[in-house]
Amino acid sequence: MQFDELNVVVREFCESRDWGQYHTPKDLAIGLVTESSELLELFRFKDRTEQSELLADSEKREEMEDELADILFFLLRYADLYDVDLEAALERKLEKNDGRYPEDEYTGSNKKYDE
Amino acid sequence: MQFDELNVVVREFCESRDWGQYHTPKDLAIGLVTESSELLELFRFKDRTEQSELLADSEKREEMEDELADILFFLLRYADLYDVDLEAALERKLEKNDGRYPEDEYTGSNKKYDE
Amino acid sequence: MQFDELNVVVREFCESRDWGQYHTPKDLAIGLVTESSELLELFRFKDRTEQSELLADSEKREEMEDELADILFFLLRYADLYDVDLEAALERKLEKNDGRYPEDEYTGSNKKYDE
Amino acid sequence: MQFDELNVVVREFCESRDWGQYHTPKDLAIGLVTESSELLELFRFKDRTEQSELLADSEKREEMEDELADILFFLLRYADLYDVDLEAALERKLEKNDGRYPEDEYTGSNKKYDE
Repeated sequence: MQFDELNVVVREFCESRDWGQYHTPKDLAIGLVTESSELLELFRFKDRTEQSELLADSEKREEMEDELADILFFLLRYADLYDVDLEAALERKLEKNDGRYPEDEYTGSNKKYDE
Repeated sequence: MQFDELNVVVREFCESRDWGQYHTPKDLAIGLVTESSELLELFRFKDRTEQSELLADSEKREEMEDELADILFFLLRYADLYDVDLEAALERKLEKNDGRYPEDEYTGSNKKYDE
Repeated sequence: MQFDELNVVVREFCESRDWGQYHTPKDLAIGLVTESSELLELFRFKDRTEQSELLADSEKREEMEDELADILFFLLRYADLYDVDLEAALERKLEKNDGRYPEDEYTGSNKKYDE
Repeated sequence: MQFDELNVVVREFCESRDWGQYHTPKDLAIGLVTESSELLELFRFKDRTEQSELLADSEKREEMEDELADILFFLLRYADLYDVDLEAALERKLEKNDGRYPEDEYTGSNKKYDE
């Protein structure tokens, strides 16, 4: 399946419930933040070993995948409603980042370009 | 382009910089939260009219698209490193939501299922 | 009660559970983000009228106050563990903001200083 | 200084700029999330050693303190506008948490009560 097809599935889900009235850019951004935060909360206070254990627990893994699905849901809905070509946006952003994080300087480095 | 191809682009970007060592589930979730929050910050204190004006401003729109691209970047990276089939996850989640938000009860409603 | 006294209450709560080992700056910042996000989630998709209704509902209000308490908890814990004088930090920040948002230019304006 | 006095300083800062019109509960919650996220972003991809180095760097420390001040700013503003007694809320929440995280079971444990 491609982005375009998933877009349609998400759109139909929302339109059949008449949710467009709630889906301002601001509220969809709130959707993205709150779902990402629920994902992050799964790992609060957890070290690397505990993170791996969580991924190996099928119940916790499903919870994690549900949060990722919610993020994708709001991302696709946002792009569909406000005419964003996500692929093109990602490619342009990667080109910008390529200039900001040249391989030879940033290999094995977690510095940010503005540090 | 499909998810799989975009995955490869993101993977190559990260591997050529040897960033895998930083990409724990927890830190990628932090990536998702912080980029979503930067998107949200664009709309802080803005009403609907001001949100529309922002979308019509080409510089602001590019900033917004960059944030959406960063979210997609971390989402694809997460799925690729930790073996999540995003499409399958979204479809499963929509089925769950379909049970929680039946059309006849939730049409034109912003109630959450637990209210 | 003053900050200092509340600090002590929070410190004793954490020390009696030996939680210091988990309270890195990064994990306390995750605490602040996730609790703030739970507060925000209460208002997702809600307009001004619905926000007011929520504040007038005693059960919802208690939920809201619990989230604010959690934010204060992590804020005090952070300041206590990493030697931050919150009052001094706030006063210094307000002085900076006073320069960035002069009254005559920003009265009744929601512009950010970098727009 | 006490909460009450800091409240007044924050209130005067906002009122002299006529910002009350923007300070809905939802937008103040957005303020809390976005400032907390900026704090968290300082620690993105950083391990414990790098977090300590950041705290020892005076420029980075000031940045960190500014973010904590912004969180306190929005927290006090929220409490002031919507009649929340933060001290009472924290005390009530700590009592609830005391029941959920009894010392003997949760000492040295990062489990959440619902796991």
